Amino acid sequence: MSDGQTPETLDPAAKKTVLRKFTYGMYVVTCADSEQTGAFTANWLSQASFDPPLVMVSVEKDAHSLPIIQNSGIFTVNVLETGQRRLAGHFGKKTAKVGDKLADIEHYQTESSQPILNDAVGYAVCRVINEMDAGDSVVVLGEVIEAGVHREDADPLTMAEAGFRHSG
Amino acid sequence: MSDGQTPETLDPAAKKTVLRKFTYGMYVVTCADSEQTGAFTANWLSQASFDPPLVMVSVEKDAHSLPIIQNSGIFTVNVLETGQRRLAGHFGKKTAKVGDKLADIEHYQTESSQPILNDAVGYAVCRVINEMDAGDSVVVLGEVIEAGVHREDADPLTMAEAGFRHSG
Repeated sequence: MSDGQTPETLDPAAKKTVLRKFTYGMYVVTCADSEQTGAFTANWLSQASFDPPLVMVSVEKDAHSLPIIQNSGIFTVNVLETGQRRLAGHFGKKTAKVGDKLADIEHYQTESSQPILNDAVGYAVCRVINEMDAGDSVVVLGEVIEAGVHREDADPLTMAEAGFRHSG
Repeated sequence: MSDGQTPETLDPAAKKTVLRKFTYGMYVVTCADSEQTGAFTANWLSQASFDPPLVMVSVEKDAHSLPIIQNSGIFTVNVLETGQRRLAGHFGKKTAKVGDKLADIEHYQTESSQPILNDAVGYAVCRVINEMDAGDSVVVLGEVIEAGVHREDADPLTMAEAGFRHSG
C-alpha cells in the first residue's frame, strides 16, 4: 500500500471527504540560501514538540523552496492575519510560472538572513533538525531558533476563511 | 540547539505568542493492539501527502497510546464536529488517571479492529509507514487505508472554538 497502490478497502470519496474536514491555518513559509530565496503558501504545518519547540511542515517534492530549505537548513513560518487571503494566494503560485514571489511584497531580513513578510502577524525561524519522506512530499522538522511578533492581538488567517482547498 | 538548549537569540515570549497563532482542528486519535485500546485528543495533526494519502500526527512520548500505535502499526483519526468540545475534553485526560477513556463513549470497530467514535463526523484509518523523533514527541506518518463518513455536511470542531490551548 505504501508503494502507491490504493488499498482495496479504501473508499476514495470517503477518504477525500474526511481529509477535507481537517482544519488548517494559512502560512507563508520563506527560505533563503546563498543564491536565492523561496516563499510558498503552506497549510500542512503544525507544532510538533514543546521542548524543544519544534515545527513540522510537509513540502511538495517539486517545490522550488524544498532544495533551498535543504541546502540552508533553515525555514521560516510567517503567520498570516485574517483578511490576508490575497497575500496567501500570491504565494500559492508556482515560482516556475511567476518568478520571484518576494519581489513585489514588502519584506526584511532576520539576523539569519531569512526573509520575513512585513505584513505577517509574526514569524518563527526554524533550523531543520530532520526530515522524512512522505509520498509526494517531504516532512521537514525544524527547531524554532528565532521568533518575532508584529501584531500581538491579530487573529490568524485560516484555510476555512480563505476558502482555499489543499487537502483530500 | 537540538540538544534541548535554548538558542540565545530566541525570545521565549515571542516564540510562545507566534506558536499560539497557529490554527488547529481537534481530533480524537484511537488505536488498538491485541491487548488494549487507546484514545487521545490530538491537534498537532495534518495531511502530509496527496498520493499516496498520508497523515502525520505528533504524539507525546509519554502517551498511553504511543506504544499501542507502534505495536499495531495502525492509528485512526476521528474528526470531531462543531459543538463537541466536551467530547474532546474527555479524551484529553490521561489514561493513567482516568482509565479506559473509550469505556463510556459509544464506539464500534472497523474491519481492522480499530475503535471508531459513533459521534465523529468521520474517520480515517492509517497504517503507519514511518516515524520520526521530535523532541518530547514522535511524529507518526500513516497512509489512509480505510475511511468512513458519518455526517457529510457537518462542520469540524476547531481548537479555536473549543478554547483549548495546546501549543506555544
